Order: sequence, then C-alpha cells, then structure tokens
Amino acid sequence: MADSDIPGLIAEMGKRARAAAVQLAGMTSDAKRGALLSAAAAIRADSESIVAANARDMASAQASGLSGALLDRLRLDAARVESTAAGVEAVAGLDDPVGRTIDRVERPNGLVLSRIRIPIGVIGIIYESRPNVTADAGALAAMSGNAAILRGGSEAIHSNRAIHAALARGLAAGGMPPAAVQLVPVTDRAAVGAMLTAEGLIDMVVPRGGKSLVARVQAEARVPVLAHLDGLCHTYIDRAANPAMAQSLALNAKMRRTGICGATETLLIDRAFADPTPVLAALADAGCELRGDGEVRAIEPRTCPAACEDWDTEYLDSILSVKLVDGADAAIAHIAAHGSHHTDAIVTEDAATAERFLAQVDSAIVMWNASTQFADGGEFGLGAEIGISTGRLHARGPVALEGLTTYKWVVRGTGQARP
Amino acid sequence: MADSDIPGLIAEMGKRARAAAVQLAGMTSDAKRGALLSAAAAIRADSESIVAANARDMASAQASGLSGALLDRLRLDAARVESTAAGVEAVAGLDDPVGRTIDRVERPNGLVLSRIRIPIGVIGIIYESRPNVTADAGALAAMSGNAAILRGGSEAIHSNRAIHAALARGLAAGGMPPAAVQLVPVTDRAAVGAMLTAEGLIDMVVPRGGKSLVARVQAEARVPVLAHLDGLCHTYIDRAANPAMAQSLALNAKMRRTGICGATETLLIDRAFADPTPVLAALADAGCELRGDGEVRAIEPRTCPAACEDWDTEYLDSILSVKLVDGADAAIAHIAAHGSHHTDAIVTEDAATAERFLAQVDSAIVMWNASTQFADGGEFGLGAEIGISTGRLHARGPVALEGLTTYKWVVRGTGQARP
Repeated sequence: MADSDIPGLIAEMGKRARAAAVQLAGMTSDAKRGALLSAAAAIRADSESIVAANARDMASAQASGLSGALLDRLRLDAARVESTAAGVEAVAGLDDPVGRTIDRVERPNGLVLSRIRIPIGVIGIIYESRPNVTADAGALAAMSGNAAILRGGSEAIHSNRAIHAALARGLAAGGMPPAAVQLVPVTDRAAVGAMLTAEGLIDMVVPRGGKSLVARVQAEARVPVLAHLDGLCHTYIDRAANPAMAQSLALNAKMRRTGICGATETLLIDRAFADPTPVLAALADAGCELRGDGEVRAIEPRTCPAACEDWDTEYLDSILSVKLVDGADAAIAHIAAHGSHHTDAIVTEDAATAERFLAQVDSAIVMWNASTQFADGGEFGLGAEIGISTGRLHARGPVALEGLTTYKWVVRGTGQARP
Repeated sequence: MADSDIPGLIAEMGKRARAAAVQLAGMTSDAKRGALLSAAAAIRADSESIVAANARDMASAQASGLSGALLDRLRLDAARVESTAAGVEAVAGLDDPVGRTIDRVERPNGLVLSRIRIPIGVIGIIYESRPNVTADAGALAAMSGNAAILRGGSEAIHSNRAIHAALARGLAAGGMPPAAVQLVPVTDRAAVGAMLTAEGLIDMVVPRGGKSLVARVQAEARVPVLAHLDGLCHTYIDRAANPAMAQSLALNAKMRRTGICGATETLLIDRAFADPTPVLAALADAGCELRGDGEVRAIEPRTCPAACEDWDTEYLDSILSVKLVDGADAAIAHIAAHGSHHTDAIVTEDAATAERFLAQVDSAIVMWNASTQFADGGEFGLGAEIGISTGRLHARGPVALEGLTTYKWVVRGTGQARP
C-alpha cells in the first residue's frame, strides 16, 4: 500500500471505531459478556485454520532467520489457541467497571452529582510477535466498552488475521458492532505512525512489546500512551530483614523468570544486614551472574566487577547488580537515582522502616516483604492486564479493565438555575 | 534572555521542582495547610506592594492599547488582593486527597494490596493576564503536594512577581521547600515551548486562558495537558419539559454570564414541546441575539438567520443558536456532531428520556433539569478548580485537588515468593 494512503486507511478505521464505540458504551455487562463468550467459541472452532495460518508465519520467520525466542513467541498450536480462547472467557468473567458510581454527592442546592465510569472510547494496541495479543487485547477493550484498533507485528500477520477473523465473527454473532475490534489489514510500518498521530480518532495507544517499540511509540505519539519503557526493579534487604526470607525473596525476585518486567535487576543490601553471604551464594549457585564492587566480591567471590551502567541496566537475564548501602535512606536515594518507577521492594521486619520506604519510593508499585515478580495484573487480582504503566497520569502499575475507563459527571436537578 | 538559554533555565527549574516535589509528597495535610495559611498572610501583608507592581503592568498595558476586558482582568486593587489571599485560605481548607486509600484487597496468598493517592509531581501552569492565578494555581498545586512551575502573561509580569514573592515567602515560612512554587522569571515566549517539551521534568501542563493559548499548548505539548479548548454547551428542551423550568433554565444557561465556558451556546427544542414561544421571547427580551432557521423565526421574529458555522461556534457572548429537533435522539445526535464534550443538559419531566440523554451524551458533564452554568469546581463542591478538562484521560470536567493526584500500589506481604 502506498504510504500516502495509510493515514486515510487509519482515519477510516478510526471513524468506524468511533461509531462502534458509541454502541459499545451502551451495551450491558451481560451483553458484552455474551459476545466475548461467543468470540471464545469462534476462536476454538477456528483452531485448525488459526494453526494453519500460523504455520505460514512460522515458515517465513524461519526463512528470514528469526531467533529461537521470537519463534517461540510467534508459534501457535492447538493448546495455545485453546489457552487464547480460555483467556477471552476469563476476560468475560471479570467485573465490568462501566456504569459504576465512583462517588455521589448532594449539594446544598439539591443538585445530585455522580461520577460514573464510562469507556475511554477508541484504544489503539500496537504489538509485536505474540499473536494471542490479538484476542487478549481485543477482549479487554471490548469488555470495557471500548473499540479497539489492533496493529500486530508483520511477522504474525496471517496468525493475527485468522485470530481476528474468528474474534470479530464471534463478537458480531454475540451482538457487538462489526467494528468493535478491527485489525489493521496492512503490514506497512507507516500504519504505526498514522495511529500514533490519529488525534481525535484514537484516544489512547498501548504498545505491547520490547523496549524499541515502546521507545518509538513514546517518541512519536501525539495521542496519550499507556506503557512502561523499563522495569528496572530493586529489592532492598534491610538490616532488620529476616535472613531466610531475604534469601528466598532475592532468589525469587531475580530468578523465577528473568525476562519479565517485574524481575529484580538490582539488589541493595544494608551494610548492617548480618547475613548477606548465603543470599549471594544462593543466587550464584542458581546460575545468576552477580555484578558488584570489591565490597560485594569480598562477600561472594564469584561476583564480577560492576560498571557504572550496571545500575541503569534492565538485564532481563540471569544477571544481577548488587550494592551495599547504608540503610533504607541510601536505598531510597539509589532507587530515586536509578529506578524506572516500576516495582521496588523492601525486605525488613521493621514496620517503621518499611512504611518509610513504601511512602518515599516513588514507583507505581512498592512492596514490603514480597517478590517483585508479583507485579502482574493477574497476581493483583485484576484478571488479564492490557499493560503495566510507569507513567504518572490516568493509570499506574498493572492496568486492566478499570484503566480502560474514564468517567463522566452526571448532574440531576429539579430546575436549579445558577444564582 | 537568549532563546538558547531558555530550555536550560526551564530544566534547572524542573530539577529544583522535582526535588521540592519529593519533600512536598512527604508533608502532612496539616503541614501543607499551615504553609498555605502563612502564604495567605504574606499576600495580605504585601498588598500595597502588589497593587503598586500591578500599577506598573496597568500603565504598560494601557500604553500598548490593551482592550478594556483585558485591562479589567489584569487590574488588582486592595479588594482583589484580599480575595486572592482568601482564595489561598479556601484551598487550605479543602480535604487533602493525598494518602487516601482508593481501594484495598487481600489476595488469597495473603498479600495486601492498597492503592494510595499520591501527588502527580511537577505541574506546569501557563496562563494569561489574570495575576490571581499565580496564587490560586500555586496554592492548589502545593496543597495537593505538587511542585508548580508558573508562567504567567508577560503583561502581568510585575504583578505576578510580587504575588509570587509573597506566596513563596509565606510557603517557605510555613515549612515548604523554596522551590515548591516557582515563577518563570522571564517573559520570553520560548519559555512556554520549553515547558511544553520538558518531558520527565514537568509531569502535566495546565493552560489557563483563551482558546489560542490552549490550542498552542495542545499542538506543541509533549507532556500531558489538562484543558478544554471549547465549551460548546447545549441545552435541550424536551417535549416533556416543564415550560416554566425550560424558560428559566434556558435564560440562566445562556445569559447569567455569557463569557464562561459553561454558558449554553446552542438551544435545541423538541418540535413536540408545546411552549417554545415564551422561551425564545424571554431570551430576546433579555438582549440575546437568536440565530436560527425559518422555523425558529416563525416562533420568534427577532431571530437572525443561522449559518452552518453557528452550530460549531462558542460565542461567549449574548448570542444563541436555536434549532428545532425531533426528540431526544435527534438532540443527542446533534450534540455528538457539534458538541465539545464539555457540558450538555436536558430539560424534561420524563425520567426515562433523561436517563437516555445522560447515558448517551458523551460529555464530561451531563445535566438533567439544571443550568449548564453550574459547570464549575466551586459549584461542584470541589473548592477552587485548576481547570476544566474535556480530555478523556485522567480527569474530566472540573479538576481540583483530586485531579492533581495519581496513585501508587502498596503491597504488604509476609515473605511471599511468586510460585
């Protein structure tokens, strides 16, 4: 497609999405639920054709030499399609925030003011190789009454089209407007740019993918973006930490899964903590590369020297930077200087120190005696998440249905004129 | 100042503001209240020098031929300084949202999750000729624990400096960091551009002023903006309206004050409403210019012909476009096509029609049997407002202290590792 036609295409999709959004905003929770269950059934029914479409993408990806990790993200089989369908059903089971009253007040003049949750409108979702995002993100948007415009990675285009066809057919059969969830039908990169500048057509963009995608979206977007660029999470072991808990949490926060944004990347240890040796030994024994200065190497000789950039690096790997600090205030200062406002944890038995850390660390999620790997919408009880936000406005941390809503003020009077 | 130095100046102010914001976030409500009361006292104490500084601005403004309305906005006297000080005291009396728990849940694994309101961080406020905004906006930001960077109109620079000097001295005497509220010390227009692109330094910008200022801010900003461009408000008189109420509300919604954003600009009347004649006659009698088509002129001969652009015009004057429509659905469609998502009202005794209108009109504020002129933070019981937002994210309608906050997730555990 000619680049010059792409903005027109996105504008057309945006107008259809806006019209669909008006209808979606008026649907009851049960109606939306029914449409999502119908969509899940359609995905299940199309399992074979979805897997066949995915085989085409996999063949191209292998031919073009995609890495093993990317191939695994792209790959669908019957089990993954089933889990995609089950994910849509799980979204259908979530509480619908739309229509909920945030607060209600009666003014002295008799006016009754309520704030009511409503959908945001049109959500753009820009993602990379995982084709299941087509269903997950589409379902989250639709369940919260938003129209979605999806733009997946070009390497997954056949998979995305197949999943989207099933999803859209199921949603329409369940009574949603056909444009409730649209997939950008072309793979041109210009489509991303057109979405990012579609002010008035797309109300919010959610990038789902690696750092380069998020950075591009944040740099180019004229529409609001919900995202996190880095997950440079810290775990701080205080002098008053329970040693066994400190070891267990450090190990889990770093090593349970190293590739997720909630994985701890820097371990801060209070110089007054009595027992750092077994903590670092356990990490090294588990295959974690430790990076630190001479003080840390004196505790655990398998430690490599840390460079300055280590304190600002999200490894997403079995690597951990380790630093000794003088108490909680030094840890708070280190996190303020190097953190990414994602998730930071303290391990301590001292409630006063913990509360100071929780109050002063300025991150979307702050934790006391828990693994940073809990930073996840599912673990927070939100069901599926559309993303995790480290921005300061609208929604922070794991964002699920409520983060896809906004509110309106409803004023009910009996003829009041303003004096 | 050389244009090339301006971004550096704003960056320096931004860094000082960020450091101040950290301290402000940790202040108790009572401490913030005390600092605001001290600032109000300082403004009162400086009343003479503030009025003298204002006289310099007024002399320049008169010499450069500013219009009477602008001169009136700029003008300060002892009474206006007193009311500015009283405004700061009123903000000190508002409920502090910071620290409030939005929700709290205990997960099956024992983790306790709370969402806690926190300040946004650093707020930029860009305004025009009213010098009292220096105190109002600074007080709202400080009371909600945010640092503020203020940039007022160049025509008010001496007034703003004098008010700011008093405010800052009072806040500091009351225990706030000196950079809690900063005033951009130069009048260069480049300072606005530098603020709008100060990503990471300024978390949100609030433009306070006319449409051209807001349009410029929305067009250039890389940081989030809280604003409304237009207040194209509608009042719809339904067939089931009480005729006396319809007349009273139409008159009040248009004519109480014509220059505010909540003033009704278009009156929609149901063709099945029995009694439009006295409504339009009362408006014309009150000096309102009516604009409509032949159908409207047949009801009220003093009506001028309406052009297409009348349906998209915010007059901010004693002018009202009037249209007959076929019922609430046609009114809803007209508002969707021409409204600005600010405030729209229905007058009816039919509850079902009213609820349909309230649900389907997609504006920040929707009203039933009330004057659109109530669209105001004070009237909503929020105290002073920082602005009214027609954006869809974060905060909509009148925005006061709560809209200047965001939240963090606080997770309290007992050593939970993620399975």
